Amino acid sequence: MQRYFLANEAFNESSVKITGDDAKHIGRVMRMESGDTVICCTYEGDCYEVSLTSVEQDAIDAKVIRKLLDDPELPVHVTVAQGLPKGDKLETIVQKGTELGAASFIPVTMDRSIVKWQKAKQDKKRQRLEKIAKEASEQSHRRIVPHIKDLATTKELSQAFSNYDHVFVAYEETAKKGEQHLLSAALTSVNKQDKILLVIGPEGGFSPEEIEQMVESGATCCAFGPRILRTETASMYGLSVISYQLEILG
Amino acid sequence: MQRYFLANEAFNESSVKITGDDAKHIGRVMRMESGDTVICCTYEGDCYEVSLTSVEQDAIDAKVIRKLLDDPELPVHVTVAQGLPKGDKLETIVQKGTELGAASFIPVTMDRSIVKWQKAKQDKKRQRLEKIAKEASEQSHRRIVPHIKDLATTKELSQAFSNYDHVFVAYEETAKKGEQHLLSAALTSVNKQDKILLVIGPEGGFSPEEIEQMVESGATCCAFGPRILRTETASMYGLSVISYQLEILG
Repeated sequence: MQRYFLANEAFNESSVKITGDDAKHIGRVMRMESGDTVICCTYEGDCYEVSLTSVEQDAIDAKVIRKLLDDPELPVHVTVAQGLPKGDKLETIVQKGTELGAASFIPVTMDRSIVKWQKAKQDKKRQRLEKIAKEASEQSHRRIVPHIKDLATTKELSQAFSNYDHVFVAYEETAKKGEQHLLSAALTSVNKQDKILLVIGPEGGFSPEEIEQMVESGATCCAFGPRILRTETASMYGLSVISYQLEILG
Repeated sequence: MQRYFLANEAFNESSVKITGDDAKHIGRVMRMESGDTVICCTYEGDCYEVSLTSVEQDAIDAKVIRKLLDDPELPVHVTVAQGLPKGDKLETIVQKGTELGAASFIPVTMDRSIVKWQKAKQDKKRQRLEKIAKEASEQSHRRIVPHIKDLATTKELSQAFSNYDHVFVAYEETAKKGEQHLLSAALTSVNKQDKILLVIGPEGGFSPEEIEQMVESGATCCAFGPRILRTETASMYGLSVISYQLEILG
């Protein structure tokens, strides 16, 4: 069933008012009519099955049929800190990471990031990523939309490590040394509800100074398998194996 | 170190001759000179560190320094059978699947595939995917280049299930029922060197007839986590968790 995330104002006790792009999508793209049902979610994670009662061009009314109880969220809160990659790779990372259960994303200007975000364009870039996260959450039946946080430097990121229970850095030098067990040791130390920060470097990887700074600040370097992954693939591997360890095996 | 897969003819006892696009890449793109080192691999999985002895425009000679012994290949042979998806998604699937360790790919025309491959264009499409697989293998330091197999139908695919030790179908109805444990039960039954077929549906999923046919032919339906993944994300999840179960935990 089609799913839409709506601002809190849209929800009344037993009715929902859908406006803007979501109303257009329901009316014009999906060509739905009164009596059709969709799922509407607050950004806080409450989801309701609703039945459309009136479909106008820019405003749709619906009545709540039932609150949904299924919860497909990861049992841990995973933030992906991604070194700014080239081109539109960050969009891919946010889309796929949202499907795979990430709770938030932090774009990070790293020593080897070739791309720089101009101050004036940062808001626009964030809005674009927020839209991608919202659409991916709707498609993958999430209960929440991941947050896109402010652009940070590696130093600022390291200073915020204390906000997390675990900080795992995907470091290919660890992969080359064959130290595969570090990842399973790291993940088996995770408890449900823990906050995890996954740190992924840009195309050129981390500088030695960044690794030193992050390790000093408490990060654990892990190999994400023995093959060298492109920057946009590393978070997909990380989120998939966190799901496997905590949702499937756990 | 830069890595190139070369035809068997390129290798002599202790020397290598690099021609064509690879020679252009080394000479013009990487601007390498005599004395620089690269890695050259046969398509059978033998890799050598070589030192360039002569760099001409279209032909490069190199001498073998040593045979490489590290093996970053998955301990199982995973074939991804992918229902034909829209747009250039199959290219993404081959690129990411190669990074994540797949051994081969089978494009499959499924009941709900919107895209059809015209007979006349099949060779060209396969060549394009082979090029993507080669480049991704080079970048991710694989020892082999995954095979791109002939286009098949779901029926033909089912008839070939006996070639595999395990056939796992990513089926979202299993996910909706909350039967998460099926995937770990499936993966813990896998032994090293086994042949695994991962079957992934197109955007619209499998038809009930396809599921029935595959299950009758011996396939196991598994949920790939509790979230609904896009078609191009499912094989990434599957390959990542196979790596985790067999390379990291195993």
